[in-house]
Amino acid sequence: MARVAVDVMLKPEILDPQGQAILGAIKRLGHTGVRSVRQGKHFELDVDGTLDDATLAMIEELAATLLSNPVIEDFVVRRSE
Amino acid sequence: MARVAVDVMLKPEILDPQGQAILGAIKRLGHTGVRSVRQGKHFELDVDGTLDDATLAMIEELAATLLSNPVIEDFVVRRSE
Repeated sequence: MARVAVDVMLKPEILDPQGQAILGAIKRLGHTGVRSVRQGKHFELDVDGTLDDATLAMIEELAATLLSNPVIEDFVVRRSE
Repeated sequence: MARVAVDVMLKPEILDPQGQAILGAIKRLGHTGVRSVRQGKHFELDVDGTLDDATLAMIEELAATLLSNPVIEDFVVRRSE
């Protein structure tokens, strides 16, 4: 069994109010040095067998169709520990 | 400037209805081989300067207090590209 992580984030040009709210809270807590915060979704998929190209291609397709909205979101698929 | 990723996931023993709903949809789409899906939050923080131990410790503290609920969630902090 292999584990794959998919991170889905809003495209850079899309306003991220949640990230801005968190940044405000960080500053109110007195922390300095954090310039920006963006929040997205993190998925962990456990797949049977080894992580071959066909499986990765299937997960890329799932990420583009089911796990993200390609109009406003980007995604990254990576092997997870 | 450095970028840090924080992934926040429900603890394994906590039921993840969103993940199960996604798994059901994957199966209805006819894909096989995906055994489980878990959904969590993904944060990307841009911090000033280099990523030294003090900055990492600050982000670990933020992750434990502001970005996650330690009662039901685990988090992972890692350097991002």
